[in-house]
Amino acid sequence: MTELSQALRAIGSSVDELLGRLIPMPEGPEGQLLDAMRYSALAGGKRLRPFLVVSSADVFNVPQSYALRVAAAIEMVHAYSLVHDDLPCMDDDDMRRGRPTVHIKYNEATAVLTGDALLTLAFEVIADDETHPEPAVRAELVAMLAKRAGSHGMVGGQMIDLLAEHESLDAGEITRLQQLKTGALIAFSCEAGAILGRADKPERHALLAYAHDLGLAFQIADDLLDYEGDASVVGKAVGKDLEAGKATLVSILGADQARIQAEMLADQAVRHLDLFGKKADSLREIADFVVNRSS
Amino acid sequence: MTELSQALRAIGSSVDELLGRLIPMPEGPEGQLLDAMRYSALAGGKRLRPFLVVSSADVFNVPQSYALRVAAAIEMVHAYSLVHDDLPCMDDDDMRRGRPTVHIKYNEATAVLTGDALLTLAFEVIADDETHPEPAVRAELVAMLAKRAGSHGMVGGQMIDLLAEHESLDAGEITRLQQLKTGALIAFSCEAGAILGRADKPERHALLAYAHDLGLAFQIADDLLDYEGDASVVGKAVGKDLEAGKATLVSILGADQARIQAEMLADQAVRHLDLFGKKADSLREIADFVVNRSS
Repeated sequence: MTELSQALRAIGSSVDELLGRLIPMPEGPEGQLLDAMRYSALAGGKRLRPFLVVSSADVFNVPQSYALRVAAAIEMVHAYSLVHDDLPCMDDDDMRRGRPTVHIKYNEATAVLTGDALLTLAFEVIADDETHPEPAVRAELVAMLAKRAGSHGMVGGQMIDLLAEHESLDAGEITRLQQLKTGALIAFSCEAGAILGRADKPERHALLAYAHDLGLAFQIADDLLDYEGDASVVGKAVGKDLEAGKATLVSILGADQARIQAEMLADQAVRHLDLFGKKADSLREIADFVVNRSS
Repeated sequence: MTELSQALRAIGSSVDELLGRLIPMPEGPEGQLLDAMRYSALAGGKRLRPFLVVSSADVFNVPQSYALRVAAAIEMVHAYSLVHDDLPCMDDDDMRRGRPTVHIKYNEATAVLTGDALLTLAFEVIADDETHPEPAVRAELVAMLAKRAGSHGMVGGQMIDLLAEHESLDAGEITRLQQLKTGALIAFSCEAGAILGRADKPERHALLAYAHDLGLAFQIADDLLDYEGDASVVGKAVGKDLEAGKATLVSILGADQARIQAEMLADQAVRHLDLFGKKADSLREIADFVVNRSS
């Protein structure tokens, strides 16, 4: 196992352990809700976002315990978005990370409420004293997460994605959609490190620029996996975009050109990190990993 | 028009005006989402929660501009909960406040995302500098709203409510369900005034005790309207609980006894306000209004 895989796994375990403590144990008549929250948030996954938060925070020597709480909150937001996205009225997916989706395992109503409760809990976790001793830092994290996750961020991207099924988007429109749908939360993951570390403006801009390019590279890599991946490795249905006639950069540019584009974006992302020197090595490594992963 | 009706209307207009500014104008490809957010949050309603925030904050001489921002955020959370609650997989309601529900006017996917975006925006609004100059107050408001709205509050209550359709609850279980489903946000409305006003513990406890009794009285009054109300006045389908065989305190106690119970709770609510003297007169008046309204 490479050092990066080890680091990803270690951060993944820490975040899982924390999520397990932050999401209440199922109990009482609402136990089904808590059970479904744990089921969806503790489903594993690449843990890219936690890695980005911890690595960005590391650049500014932020205690890892702070970064992990923000990472757990981001994983809750990510999990909520997947639970809602998988609903029959949205993407209608039965499988996610190799397991039945929440509305299949429980039911649709539980899936709606599970997403709602995870999103709400994410804000509770961030606003709590334990996330950072300075309330100004916590308030800024809340405001920024809400901005990135809301109608001008992730949820806006999901709306455009749904409408896009009925019309063909060009490469520019697809890029904007992806910047919102997946890029916004990746941006927040890096921004959060800067906010926790009270970074100055140039540092914050550099991290955002890195996250921006990385997010696009990540999405193209994801589309390539959907296009040419193996469902048993990817853990969810593949070939769905093609089947749905959904335009992606892969369908517009072709797989070869898309791969070149993803690698170019990853290189470009890394160049924004120059001002941080060796402190940003983890962020450099993950950029390479993102475009060369197989799941 | 009574003074109270005038006050309710004035606060309602101020909150509507603010919601109109806080929810972005529909624009770009995600315009449908913003349109649906405005449609659901600007649908009028009694504005009980804004009235409670403003009146509670008034007790501590908090500038109304702060209270109104919290009130707008609570209305967003309330609106989101209604949009999700009306979904086919939940209560399956076609009409709300005399107009088609969001999934009827737009579609189900838009309704899911509209709720998500409104909930997210509520936290963004509260965390913003303009809500209160002290970040500690904003962080506490975020944490408390999340707690009241989440799995151990409103969303937990919605989960129990859904499961209750398949089993009969007793009066105690129904009371707990309602404390969570509607009581939690009413509690936060009063608590928010105390947090904004940096109230001391006894003051905060008094307001919470008031809100607790008021919330239950409000819910019984609501059930009575469903039981004996006129759909054209109430603005949504009535008789639904009875039809669904859903147990309420009205079906268990009978209408007369339930009315007595609601009035008793309203009286009890008001007694918790003694320590505030005349400053809490608005809160006293609304308690009377809550149990005697016709819509």
